[in-house]
Amino acid sequence: MGKRIMIVGGVAGGASVAARARRLDESAEIIMFEKGPHVSFSNCALPFHLSGIVENSEKLVLMSPEVFKAQYNIEARTNSEVVKINRVKKTITVKDLISGNEYEEAYDKLVLSPGANPIMPKIPGHDSPHVFTVRNVVDIDKLNKYIKNNGVREVSVIGGGFIGIEVAENLRMAGLNVTLVEAMNQVMAPFDYDMAQILHKEMIDHGVNLIVSDGIEKIYDDHIELQSGRQFPAQAVVMAIGVRPETSLAVDAGLEIGETGGIKVDHNYLTSDGDIYAVGDAIEVHHRITRQKTRLTLAGPAQRQARAAANHMYGIPNRNTGVIGSSVVRVFDLNAASTGLNEKTAKKAGIDYDFVYVIPGDKVGLMPDSNPLHFKLLFEVPTGRILGAQAIGKGNVDKRIDVIATMIMMDGTLEDLQELELCYSPLFGTAKDVVNYAALVGMNILNGRFKQVPVTKVRELVANNAVIIDVREKREYEAGHIINAVNIPLSQFRERMNEIPADVPVYLHCRSSQRSYNALMALQNSGYKNACNISGSFLGLCLYEYYNDKVNNRKKIVTEYNFR
Amino acid sequence: MGKRIMIVGGVAGGASVAARARRLDESAEIIMFEKGPHVSFSNCALPFHLSGIVENSEKLVLMSPEVFKAQYNIEARTNSEVVKINRVKKTITVKDLISGNEYEEAYDKLVLSPGANPIMPKIPGHDSPHVFTVRNVVDIDKLNKYIKNNGVREVSVIGGGFIGIEVAENLRMAGLNVTLVEAMNQVMAPFDYDMAQILHKEMIDHGVNLIVSDGIEKIYDDHIELQSGRQFPAQAVVMAIGVRPETSLAVDAGLEIGETGGIKVDHNYLTSDGDIYAVGDAIEVHHRITRQKTRLTLAGPAQRQARAAANHMYGIPNRNTGVIGSSVVRVFDLNAASTGLNEKTAKKAGIDYDFVYVIPGDKVGLMPDSNPLHFKLLFEVPTGRILGAQAIGKGNVDKRIDVIATMIMMDGTLEDLQELELCYSPLFGTAKDVVNYAALVGMNILNGRFKQVPVTKVRELVANNAVIIDVREKREYEAGHIINAVNIPLSQFRERMNEIPADVPVYLHCRSSQRSYNALMALQNSGYKNACNISGSFLGLCLYEYYNDKVNNRKKIVTEYNFR
Repeated sequence: MGKRIMIVGGVAGGASVAARARRLDESAEIIMFEKGPHVSFSNCALPFHLSGIVENSEKLVLMSPEVFKAQYNIEARTNSEVVKINRVKKTITVKDLISGNEYEEAYDKLVLSPGANPIMPKIPGHDSPHVFTVRNVVDIDKLNKYIKNNGVREVSVIGGGFIGIEVAENLRMAGLNVTLVEAMNQVMAPFDYDMAQILHKEMIDHGVNLIVSDGIEKIYDDHIELQSGRQFPAQAVVMAIGVRPETSLAVDAGLEIGETGGIKVDHNYLTSDGDIYAVGDAIEVHHRITRQKTRLTLAGPAQRQARAAANHMYGIPNRNTGVIGSSVVRVFDLNAASTGLNEKTAKKAGIDYDFVYVIPGDKVGLMPDSNPLHFKLLFEVPTGRILGAQAIGKGNVDKRIDVIATMIMMDGTLEDLQELELCYSPLFGTAKDVVNYAALVGMNILNGRFKQVPVTKVRELVANNAVIIDVREKREYEAGHIINAVNIPLSQFRERMNEIPADVPVYLHCRSSQRSYNALMALQNSGYKNACNISGSFLGLCLYEYYNDKVNNRKKIVTEYNFR
Repeated sequence: MGKRIMIVGGVAGGASVAARARRLDESAEIIMFEKGPHVSFSNCALPFHLSGIVENSEKLVLMSPEVFKAQYNIEARTNSEVVKINRVKKTITVKDLISGNEYEEAYDKLVLSPGANPIMPKIPGHDSPHVFTVRNVVDIDKLNKYIKNNGVREVSVIGGGFIGIEVAENLRMAGLNVTLVEAMNQVMAPFDYDMAQILHKEMIDHGVNLIVSDGIEKIYDDHIELQSGRQFPAQAVVMAIGVRPETSLAVDAGLEIGETGGIKVDHNYLTSDGDIYAVGDAIEVHHRITRQKTRLTLAGPAQRQARAAANHMYGIPNRNTGVIGSSVVRVFDLNAASTGLNEKTAKKAGIDYDFVYVIPGDKVGLMPDSNPLHFKLLFEVPTGRILGAQAIGKGNVDKRIDVIATMIMMDGTLEDLQELELCYSPLFGTAKDVVNYAALVGMNILNGRFKQVPVTKVRELVANNAVIIDVREKREYEAGHIINAVNIPLSQFRERMNEIPADVPVYLHCRSSQRSYNALMALQNSGYKNACNISGSFLGLCLYEYYNDKVNNRKKIVTEYNFR
């Protein structure tokens, strides 16, 4: 008789452990217990049912218990909740949620892959029938049917993380009026505040009623009330403020819980009990860059953890490279991807960093679908080690972030990045790819070849009457420019250089920083010591200021926004 | 007075040297000499004028001499051929192609960036007015106008490399009848023979009359004749059989030429003359993996070489990482990208390698635009170092190849690749990306966990009456299968395992290898020693056999092709 491998949870992590264990051992008895009615569904695809991209919710279920049994000889018991771990006896107590019966199953190895639960704040109205969370196929089906059957037109989504954004987007695509409420001052925490503004603009451009820096206070039958007192109509409310690792079973069994609230595991995803593994959203993981403990609710790492746990059961050594947190999300016409650290997380980890924000075209400019690619690259000072990146644009942004993720995993530096030889054709990119270009700029900064200020500081510069020089051509300047900026086009720059004061700091910009970089080098090589480039330039500035100006009725610091 | 930097050639490499030198030195006198009427045009975008993707040929010119002068203080002299280098005097002799006058210019540093010339075989008819090459804007304009003005319907393209393929594709998109002739047995040398078959099928599916293993013999006014004697109508002929580095100036000046016929350069792209640099298509470069000299006509490396040459003039140290050859091309509805070595080049370099050919979906299967991604990964034996990859599919194949290119540049191994944490969302990929998956399979092969045969060997297996087991479900088998293959669906595999002979080799396959891998592990873990996986499986086999069967009237080894 083979090993008895019992698995709590039958989705990403659980199903992967089961499949890997079967490949390693024909004789093992493998049983997955899943509380819900489905195993092996695509969590990440749930929101796409709301717009009809995934038309039939049954398609979200990737494999039935019958197929698991027939193809893998794996037993998948749905509607079966593991309610207790009896570590001394090495059994689990399972409750059949249909019959209500409880029974025990013995294990040689137990794997916990219970996932994480949506957080539901206990505010008035949270238990109303029109309040939903999105964790599984049943949830999304219920929400979708409720909307359809009740002729819902107004939905509020609470929380601007991955799930909140994707739910809001898909509901909007289905033609509903959507209010999205986020308690922080920005959506999508993996992005820095400056980059998040681009996503804010995209959402309001697509008709989402976006509210940041405000929280939900009360849910009424037909509207919601926020902490600020503002009210918005809502015939349905989706709560997506975050998830909490499902650790109750582990806690009850006396397994060690980590500092972050996730189940503590070792190199091989073994818990504090030598026969119990834990993988997926419920565990605490090691961050490769910060070297701190963290939690991560991503499918890719969960699958690797699952494989590693199964390997360890069979004596196959694992390599644990830690996590870096790579992700991508579509926000209407934009794709937004990120990896590694951002400014917020780098600061929190106490890592000395600097960054580059460049906006080259994602393809050769003369190609019809060339679009600006917003790219922010963080690197460590003084080593130049790549720490992370954020990319937003209409095109292939995940490609660039995957390259950066690869560099981070390989401990790459700016010097490595600038030399990368990537695929090029005008249909796919530019000969000097944005990642090469960002590395070159980063090297210049690291080597002190030039100084830069971020777009986030321009308002202050304007307020202080700083000398701002716009090196774009005249017609570009006239179409919209920073208030008080002086226009000295690059094409007249050398003959008019003497107009630029040498004794005070001057701040240069163009549309995307490329021309202003050339102007800056010309200035410096002519003896100017106080010139500084505005990283992100006019395009980045307009995107950075737009949303805030609009919602907060702020005074514009540009004569006209220009987003091209 | 600053340095006098004279540059021969004003396109990719030349223009990049000029711009970089200007950023490093305000006082330098920088002059680019270009034989043709344009500097700084997009070579790589030329073919897209033929289909109208780039409607106006003037758009192909990125920057005029006037803009170079105004924005960068760089002089660009067009229609100016440098006819001689006078190394002792440190001057060049320039011929003004408009006036015919010759004059000399002194240099402190000279940069050669003359590019490469299309090879024109001296066959009968090669000098007819309806025979074209594609090197610059004038060429493409001439070809396009000739086609339009003469009502050309039938075009022959000679050569199946990047230019030939792109010209053929764009002409076909413009509605013309196109014959593409390639002397080798496959188009697109960066791909192995097996992968190239997928491109062959795509071209014939889109109505290109594709001829391989045949060469051009004679060009008549209205048709061509091949070496085989076959004739095809051709009112216009595009010669794209390859390019030859433009080294005449260097040879005349006594500069050293390398073993590959390109100009010999050192670490900093300095020629055998300490004041003369050479960059771009005319030089010989160091291959990072084979450590051999090679030539490469790609824009990305040319730009890096240009920057390095300018840096060296100003004492800035360079890092020379060699080249690996990353490229991407669109072939109708398919994208095809590759990097590093393929089987042919690995063999030639005497590198011991093995490879993985997998065909997972490029996105989560339930997403509407999920498509098979054909991915071939080469690794070194026994180190597992990544040597190269080829990817073909409808989606984002360049992303995967860029990740592999990054791994190669960082000296990554299969072990590194399997652990990469890449972005995932169902719209963009799968939780276990194809590169992770390929690495896992590669590790299994490297560790001897299972054996595989490539799709290229299946015809031989069939001929020898080998035991082939198709583990797909019955309805898949019935829709098309390998002749003589036995159908034991994975869902019945364990109960019917006893039907499989244990004493002779058996070859397993499914659609894409995923199910057959599970079946194979079940067999091995049940004591079978002679089981082998067919890598590429049924889908890969159908694509591999299709074109060859069709054009060579070969006996099919499948009952029906299936390409889904």
